[in-house]
Amino acid sequence: MLRSHTCGELRINHVGQTVTISGWVQGIRDKGSLLWIDLRDRYGITQITIETENASKDIVDIARSLGREFVISVSGKVVERYSKSDKLETGDIEINPDKITILNTAIIPPFTIEDETDGGDDLRMKYRYLDLRRNPVRKNLELRHRLAIETRNYLDKLNFLEVETPVLIKSTPEGARDFVVPSRMNPGEFYALPQSPQTFKQLLMVGGFDRYYQIVKCFRDEDLRADRQPEFTQIDCEMAFVEQEDILNTFEGLVRSLFKTVKGIDIPTLSRMTYADAMKYYGNDKPDIRFEMKFVELNNIVKGQNFKVFDDAQLVVGICAKGAAEYTRKQLDELTEFVKRPQIGATGLVYARYNSDGTIKSSVDKFYNEEELKKWAAAMNAQAGDLILILAGEENKTRKAMSELRLEMGNRLGLRDKNTFACHWIIDFPLLEFSEEVDSTSIGETGGRWHAKHHPFTSPKPEDIALLDSDPGAVRANAYDLVINGVEIGGGSIRIHDKNLQAKMFSLLGFTKEEAQAQFGFLMNAFEYGAPPHGGLAFGFDRLCSLIGGADVIRDFIAFPKNNSGRDVMINSPSPIAQAQLDELAIALKK
Amino acid sequence: MLRSHTCGELRINHVGQTVTISGWVQGIRDKGSLLWIDLRDRYGITQITIETENASKDIVDIARSLGREFVISVSGKVVERYSKSDKLETGDIEINPDKITILNTAIIPPFTIEDETDGGDDLRMKYRYLDLRRNPVRKNLELRHRLAIETRNYLDKLNFLEVETPVLIKSTPEGARDFVVPSRMNPGEFYALPQSPQTFKQLLMVGGFDRYYQIVKCFRDEDLRADRQPEFTQIDCEMAFVEQEDILNTFEGLVRSLFKTVKGIDIPTLSRMTYADAMKYYGNDKPDIRFEMKFVELNNIVKGQNFKVFDDAQLVVGICAKGAAEYTRKQLDELTEFVKRPQIGATGLVYARYNSDGTIKSSVDKFYNEEELKKWAAAMNAQAGDLILILAGEENKTRKAMSELRLEMGNRLGLRDKNTFACHWIIDFPLLEFSEEVDSTSIGETGGRWHAKHHPFTSPKPEDIALLDSDPGAVRANAYDLVINGVEIGGGSIRIHDKNLQAKMFSLLGFTKEEAQAQFGFLMNAFEYGAPPHGGLAFGFDRLCSLIGGADVIRDFIAFPKNNSGRDVMINSPSPIAQAQLDELAIALKK
Repeated sequence: MLRSHTCGELRINHVGQTVTISGWVQGIRDKGSLLWIDLRDRYGITQITIETENASKDIVDIARSLGREFVISVSGKVVERYSKSDKLETGDIEINPDKITILNTAIIPPFTIEDETDGGDDLRMKYRYLDLRRNPVRKNLELRHRLAIETRNYLDKLNFLEVETPVLIKSTPEGARDFVVPSRMNPGEFYALPQSPQTFKQLLMVGGFDRYYQIVKCFRDEDLRADRQPEFTQIDCEMAFVEQEDILNTFEGLVRSLFKTVKGIDIPTLSRMTYADAMKYYGNDKPDIRFEMKFVELNNIVKGQNFKVFDDAQLVVGICAKGAAEYTRKQLDELTEFVKRPQIGATGLVYARYNSDGTIKSSVDKFYNEEELKKWAAAMNAQAGDLILILAGEENKTRKAMSELRLEMGNRLGLRDKNTFACHWIIDFPLLEFSEEVDSTSIGETGGRWHAKHHPFTSPKPEDIALLDSDPGAVRANAYDLVINGVEIGGGSIRIHDKNLQAKMFSLLGFTKEEAQAQFGFLMNAFEYGAPPHGGLAFGFDRLCSLIGGADVIRDFIAFPKNNSGRDVMINSPSPIAQAQLDELAIALKK
Repeated sequence: MLRSHTCGELRINHVGQTVTISGWVQGIRDKGSLLWIDLRDRYGITQITIETENASKDIVDIARSLGREFVISVSGKVVERYSKSDKLETGDIEINPDKITILNTAIIPPFTIEDETDGGDDLRMKYRYLDLRRNPVRKNLELRHRLAIETRNYLDKLNFLEVETPVLIKSTPEGARDFVVPSRMNPGEFYALPQSPQTFKQLLMVGGFDRYYQIVKCFRDEDLRADRQPEFTQIDCEMAFVEQEDILNTFEGLVRSLFKTVKGIDIPTLSRMTYADAMKYYGNDKPDIRFEMKFVELNNIVKGQNFKVFDDAQLVVGICAKGAAEYTRKQLDELTEFVKRPQIGATGLVYARYNSDGTIKSSVDKFYNEEELKKWAAAMNAQAGDLILILAGEENKTRKAMSELRLEMGNRLGLRDKNTFACHWIIDFPLLEFSEEVDSTSIGETGGRWHAKHHPFTSPKPEDIALLDSDPGAVRANAYDLVINGVEIGGGSIRIHDKNLQAKMFSLLGFTKEEAQAQFGFLMNAFEYGAPPHGGLAFGFDRLCSLIGGADVIRDFIAFPKNNSGRDVMINSPSPIAQAQLDELAIALKK
């Protein structure tokens, strides 16, 4: 071992010992008679101090030849510092070296290896191996490791088995686009990389495995948004002989345990909200409930006063921003601009200030007198000092816009603290949603079709099965999402375990019998041999890490992420391959 | 939960309790007045007993309608059995049901769901979800889970971090053939699936991560042999600031801990053997040292007696099979046939029986009198009762043939017990080997070239670096394999961390500067920024599982394996994909 200790572990009780530490030169200060080297490794920084007049010429020469990020090994005696530092955990001691060995030199890094670096995103990604030396990046990956270990041990104690499912599977047209892998041994045929191990985990249930999990890479060839990666990691779970309640309780337990063991935070029992309520009160199926500010529908109160905007609107809906009555005209204009942005799409914003003197003033005083406005305030539970914000228009669009405005107000009022965690379940999702879009994966239909809201294996609620033929859109699923701070962290469902019901679902989704058989025959066949009732869920592990780590961007929690073009700029991949490789795979590039 | 207990947990102390269990019908015996159902789940089998005259008609009717593998839920009282069974862990009790619910029916499975099944390999793979219900298969995967969990916790305690490296990486011509993935967003370009995370783990060392591991899927598009899968799993590890000794000690600790915690077996400190000795004494770089039977070179003893076969041979080598002097002529003929098989390739076998009466008789008595034969016996440490077996010919070929013969004799003499584990290290591998073959991945050369014996990042022993130019074949590497029972379970090396030495290696391996830069530029660039000394190893996890599980075939330890054509016969993959998918990927099939 090229060290006896790490750069993070020496303390006052080591004084007098002769030690060897190794690491990277974080910095050097040369005051002539005294020369300090800060030596860094994953565990911390230790100061090396050389009294140049008493030290050997060798050591002084070597020390003076060092540059930032040189890799060195230092042997010497641990001594107590004259002036201790409380910024370093090793700040009570320093090392007087007997020997310094240069293990490797380094050229000047393209950005500083410090908590706050001068490197931009692109540079950091290109030199990710240097970025990884920075504390914040390393800590993110340490957190990820810790969360994975704790997840595994928690589930292991509950008799879950981690089973590796295959990465080279079969392409299916349902869902997002697959990455595919040409098969050399089967020319003209392709494997696909899994978007999730969904069918395999269900087969494990048919196979009697009863409690399965896997922390597993999944793949989607989608156009990337800021927060998406072509390869991502799931905590994938499935249980047999359970009902929805059992799954919610089991994985609520996991989440609470992770917060407790990794962050030391006690998360209270998770509340549950139906999808219908989430849409009604938050305009959103993943509401951030760190703060209240629920939607209040005002149609009955505001209509019939000759204000055309409200009178014509399908929905008039308001939120009450506590204590924001003092908002300036400028701030209110900003909010109006905010909701009018194309991605929000509202045509305007109505507000009413409930002033601290008890008066109410609105942006529509022409149409509503103070008495009317007091009715608004009453409906919204507004108090003196509050600000009422109202949007109106087509129902779905207005809910969506109001949801954005609510989150914006949450931000502005400081109600979305990253170190506060509000976890809850959204339940009773609709089974299906109708999409007008005809995408490349639509099957045999034009003019839109029903899509599975969750996926085609999700079970309808037994009491809603009768509606499958008459009113598919009204059928609720035994499906649930885990939401933390407005982010969907996990989702799952009770699955269909009956072959006939599964066939009916495929038919509703536009599969012909032959297509269903070709794509999912193995699963429907499996259901003939005694499939137990089962269900499960999957957590987005990258997102869980970033959320628990208090960050917004999952990329910061992935060791070697790809950019928005799906490119790894460090290794410069993807890249062309040799003609010989294409030939062997029996494929050609299209010009 | 559709059960209060599993089918494996009820004991005498549960008698009197009302319970609910769920599972699969293993079997039914109907004796008219008494009817028994064996109900099975992952945890065991519990007997349900119905006294048909006292039970409700409903229960009797349902019970009589059940078939094998029906999924049912049974509620009832736990009672003590009249005749207890010691074959079942639940054999002291049975359940008198108040209610039986059929959760799912089942058609007759294509093979019996029993420890010894009547299903052949092909059928079992096609219906793998049924095969998984069988105890031996499930136990294999439970062992795999246990080994993974214990590995992670062992390494976690030593401050190793599990870091996920990317699956979509870059194709490189070195090594085996890559699976590739066409990039839709970067037309004409491809990702490759990793053959190992080798370069990424080295970059993690450059990034200061210091102790890395990952249990990770790797991929090789090779023609499959019985024991190979296109996707396989490695325990992949790397450490910085270490020397070979540290790595051997760390992972020897892991292996011993796995045997202890998972199998309850104390493995002694691992012995170490140089590659040179392994080849000299066992003709093999992964000798099975559960038994001795070392090679003895006999050139000096047997030559010059006018036996042309020996006189002309480059090498005459023998092994002594203890206690096998009684072998019949038929047995000896079998051995001769064995060594003459084309895949072994010897031209014949010479033997000498050291009879229990002290006489020695050989198959070459014409050339060697008893006095000469006694010299053989002395050289080989043979005792009365032993059988001496000798092969002669070209050195490498003869060693290889003798290695096979030795293993065959080990089998025949019962010296290779699957529940005995002999673990050891092979060290000091040669850095390079010369290959006459020109394969599709050879670069810029014809007529053969040097290949990296381990891989191109392996460090030569410092004392041998001088030989790199003069005698590359003599250069030894700081490379090591972990061998258990004659199977290579893991291997690794100290890596090159110096940019210039790495460049020299690439040049020796036939890369031009431009090729090396194009393929591995990111690694060589990284080495400029302060790479620490580092090294590591990887274990073949599938093989480790099968070995510890006492089996020969890794496929039995993979939940959903592929067959020898790389095909998953259960889901029928690979398969053709839609023209639209090919178009999006900008590739075409070659006719």
